[in-house]
Parts: sequence; C-alpha cells; structure tokens
Amino acid sequence: MGIVIPLEDAKESGIERLLALVTPDMERVNQTILSRAASDVTMIPEVANHLISSGGKRLRPMLTLAAAGLCGYGGNGHIKLAASVEFMHTATLLHDDVVDESDMRRGKLAARMLWGNEASVLVGDFLLGQAFKMMVEVGSLACLEVLSTAAAVIAEGEVMQLAAAKDTETGEDDYLAVIRAKTAALFGAAAEVGALLAERPKAEIAACRSYGLNLGIAFQLIDDALDYGGTSAKLGKNVGDDFREGKITLPVVLCFRRGTQDERIFWRRTLEKGEIEEGDLDIAIATMRKHRAIEDTVERARHYGAMARDALELFPASPWKIALNDVVDFCVNRIS
Amino acid sequence: MGIVIPLEDAKESGIERLLALVTPDMERVNQTILSRAASDVTMIPEVANHLISSGGKRLRPMLTLAAAGLCGYGGNGHIKLAASVEFMHTATLLHDDVVDESDMRRGKLAARMLWGNEASVLVGDFLLGQAFKMMVEVGSLACLEVLSTAAAVIAEGEVMQLAAAKDTETGEDDYLAVIRAKTAALFGAAAEVGALLAERPKAEIAACRSYGLNLGIAFQLIDDALDYGGTSAKLGKNVGDDFREGKITLPVVLCFRRGTQDERIFWRRTLEKGEIEEGDLDIAIATMRKHRAIEDTVERARHYGAMARDALELFPASPWKIALNDVVDFCVNRIS
Repeated sequence: MGIVIPLEDAKESGIERLLALVTPDMERVNQTILSRAASDVTMIPEVANHLISSGGKRLRPMLTLAAAGLCGYGGNGHIKLAASVEFMHTATLLHDDVVDESDMRRGKLAARMLWGNEASVLVGDFLLGQAFKMMVEVGSLACLEVLSTAAAVIAEGEVMQLAAAKDTETGEDDYLAVIRAKTAALFGAAAEVGALLAERPKAEIAACRSYGLNLGIAFQLIDDALDYGGTSAKLGKNVGDDFREGKITLPVVLCFRRGTQDERIFWRRTLEKGEIEEGDLDIAIATMRKHRAIEDTVERARHYGAMARDALELFPASPWKIALNDVVDFCVNRIS
Repeated sequence: MGIVIPLEDAKESGIERLLALVTPDMERVNQTILSRAASDVTMIPEVANHLISSGGKRLRPMLTLAAAGLCGYGGNGHIKLAASVEFMHTATLLHDDVVDESDMRRGKLAARMLWGNEASVLVGDFLLGQAFKMMVEVGSLACLEVLSTAAAVIAEGEVMQLAAAKDTETGEDDYLAVIRAKTAALFGAAAEVGALLAERPKAEIAACRSYGLNLGIAFQLIDDALDYGGTSAKLGKNVGDDFREGKITLPVVLCFRRGTQDERIFWRRTLEKGEIEEGDLDIAIATMRKHRAIEDTVERARHYGAMARDALELFPASPWKIALNDVVDFCVNRIS
C-alpha cells in the first residue's frame, strides 16, 4: 500500500481537473495537517513531517473534499475530516514500516530507519489520536462512526494479511478480503464522510462509499501489478519490493494457480521460504507474463474501476463528477 | 506502567468495597471486552485475550464505573466507555512492549514474544479502533473529546519519554510531565467520562478528572518505587526491570541529584550506557536507600494521593466515595 505518484506525473495523467477543484480546500487541509502534527515534543513533528512532506499525493483527503463538493456541502467540516483521513493513512504507513521491516518509503529512508521503530509506533499512535480529536471537533457522530469503523477494519485487514502472509495457497477471494480491509476501507470511508457531512439521502451516501471502496480496490490491484512491471523512477518505489518481502499479491495468486508444479516450487522457495537468488525476480516476471497474471490483474482493476464509475452515475453531471471519474482513469491507467 | 496486582492481594489490600460495588457492572464490561476483541481473524482474539485475561485488575475501567456511580448515572453508556478505556490501555501495553523490547508482561511472556512485534502493533491498532467504535456508539461527543484527547496525550507522553530516555539529567518536573501524560491522563479521562455521562455540573466533572489524574500519578510513582524495592512474587514483575531497561524514574532522578560524583558515574554507566554488571542492582538499591530516594518517592505519591482524596471532598458521603478513597489508600499502601 501507500503508492505515491509525484505531482508532475499526476498532472500529466489526468487528475488536473480534480486538483484545480480542490486546491483552495487542499491548502487549508495542508495547513491543518501541519498544525495538528505540531507538538512540544520535537520528535513528533520531525517524524510526522518526514512522511507528510515526502511527496504523497494525498488522494484520500482529496476524495473527502471531492465527495463533499459533489454533494454540495457548504460547511467547513470537510477540511478537518480530510486531514483526519490523511493522519489515519500516515499512521498506518508508520506502523506498516515497522510491521514489514521496510527500509524505504516513497523513495526516502523509512521513518523507522531514522528515528527507530519506537518512534514510528508512537508517532503513529499520536497521529491517530489527533485524527480522532479532529473528527470529534467536527461533531458528526455519523462521520465518527464511519471513520472509527474504518480504523478497526484497516487494522483487522493488516492482521489478516499477517496471518495469510507468505502462504502461496491464498485464494483470490482471501486476497480481495485483505485489500478491501487494509486499503479500500479508508478510500470508501474518505468519500462517504464527504457525502455524510452534506446530509444527502442514504443512496447518495452509499454511492460515494461504493465509489471510494471500488476505486481503492482498483488502486491497490494496479499497485500490485506495478510492483512486477512498472518503472521504479515513476513510482519512487522499486519494482520487486513485494517479491523481496514475500508478499502474496494478486499477480502471484493468479500465477500460482495457473502454474506448473515446478513453478509452484519456485514460488514456495522464493516467497514462502524467502530464499531469493540473483535473477529470481526476472524469472518471476517472466512467469507472470507467460500466464498473463499482470494483464489479468489489470483487468480485475478495470472491473472495480468500472464499478466505481457506475456508483457515481446516481449524481447529475457536474465538474466534481467529471473530476472523480478522472481519478478512476488515472488510477487504472497508471499501468499503461 | 501497567503494574498488575493479583486479585487475592487486592482483596486484602482494601479495595473490596469498590469490587463489591462494581461487580455487576464489571461483569458486563468483561463480556463487552470479550465480544469486542472477537474477530474472524483468529490471531486478533488470541493476542488480545492473552493480555486481557492475564490477570490485570482493570483499575481504569473500574474508575469509569465508580465515577458514574458516584455521580448517580442511571444509563448504560458507562459499560462501553469502561471497556473502551480498558482497550485503550491494552493497546498501549501492546505497543509499549514493542517500544521497550520487553520480554515479559504481567509475569507472562509478552505478546510480541509469542506472536511477534507485527501482531502486537496491529492488534493494538485494532483495539484502539474498537475502542473508538464503542465510544461512538455511546454517542456522547463530550466523552469522545475527553478520550480522544487522552489517546493523543498518552502517545505524546510516550514519545516524550523516548526522547528523554536514558538521560540521567532529567529533572523531577520533566519526569512528572511524562507520567502525567503517559499514565495519569488515562486515569483522569476514565474518571471524567463517568461524571460526564451523568451530566453533572462542571465542578464535579473536573473533580472526578482531578481525582483520576492525581491517583494516576500516585499509582505510577509507587510503581516506580516498587521497581527498586517490592517483592517480585507480589508484583508479577521483577524488581529491577526499570533499572535493566535504563528507565529514568523518580527514584533515579532524586538519587542522581543527591548523589556524589562517583555515584553519578555509576548511574551514567548503568542507565545511560546500559553497561550493567553483576551486583549493580544491589548497589543501585543501596544508593537509593542511602539518599532516601525510595521513601521520598513514596512521600511524593502520598502528596498526589492526598490531592486525589481532596478532589472528592466536593461530593457528599456515599458508599462510592468511600470506595474511591479506598483506591487511593490501596494504591499508596501497596508499598508498605
């Protein structure tokens, strides 16, 4: 999770309409993020800003702002909720690095490499606390319910992944359940709270949630596919990270199912046992190409992208709707 | 933090009146705790129950119940809030073990030794998410504000401790700021939300908070003193843990200030550099006795205990008030 596309690429890739619409609000969100990551305990803003200022595109808070815009919200609550969503995401990244023992994050050293695991765990906890404080300030119990449920579901998804880790027998359904929880739940909640604030009818709130959830699944699947085929310069993340960490992602799930006995032995050795030799990544990619595992992962992503787009069909035409549809194209087309 | 007194000792030590009053509610809290730690992801209840069922006395949730009782609360919200408080505490313990690299917790292997650091971080996050979900279900924004602020303050206190760790120059004020945040804030919030639910006048709510906060400081100071003088059988935790981990607690702060140049060299070697030799713990304890550092730590604890008792004076006589005063005696007298 936590793929990052530098802004210059983003602009070329078709979310410029969204950026234009959210920029005034996004500046307020960024100010809120900075002021709420402040603390007299200097290590807190240091660690937080290392990650916050590391070039994340802030897609999740933008979803909150865009859903609020789509639903005609006229208040200020969306600013703090968007900042809360980003803090929840940042907290997850800090804890993920500790869990995955990652050295790098967004092309920079992971916070845990600079300040230690302790600081990553605790600053994550602090940001989560600050996120809830901001939600409480907004005062919508409905939004609080959606976001606190998402927080529990995300953690549950991470534990699920931990339990399923390095098991090449993982099925597609199991894998989908993991990314639905650990990635898509926050996308869904981010969009849903934008609509909730605007007090729209149930169906529209559900549509925003569905849009976010399906977008999140598509996003993660493309991320998985890119890890076996993108270019590292574009991603700020090296191709093969998932492979080296023994992560079972959809390309692997498909490839393992479709593979020969010898290929399965290869996947078990490399991913389950972690015995990776020179040239194994090339073999992995070649095997995936042979079984069309990457292409089919992208196909699956397109399917969820289409669902996201259909969810929005409930809404009348508007610049916000166009911009949110752009995001789907942007997420899915990162691959090509 | 997180000292645990087995129930049999508790009964001898004077909180039997509190136990008698809260038992019916506490059973509902325990049921809530069990049901909310449940998950289809089996690792979650395994890890959670390892800690939850490890004999913690659940002083914090009892404070919520007792404050609600003291304030004549007649609803059901205190059950879920008490369970939330315990989940927040459990999440902190899980994360603390990772941060401190502790092997043991409450006389059992720490969860991270059995399931790994990953599970400890993530199950902690899950419990925190579940805690917020329960608070949202109770629906009091005022209680949500108090508890979400406490969550941020606790994490801030832990980072503060991390930054101050192993610095023998730490002053008493600095140390008090740390334990106020990392331990006392949750005691204070636990008691405050009990009063908030009952919609009592501001002064009574503040009195409950003050009671909890000062009790929490006293509790932690006695904990610190016990670590250099209690009996391990009584504590489920070995004397000298803080010493071995290089923790700067009040007995050390006092001892360092009052010490000779040679003694300061000793503290720097053992606590800052972690170069501990056979017999050093005995030297540490003897040096503390010489400077009356343990006795004076207990004296400080009595001072905060007295403040906790005075905070309650606002309330008319009642069995709840007697029971809450018992808790102060219990916490302070654990030492003698």
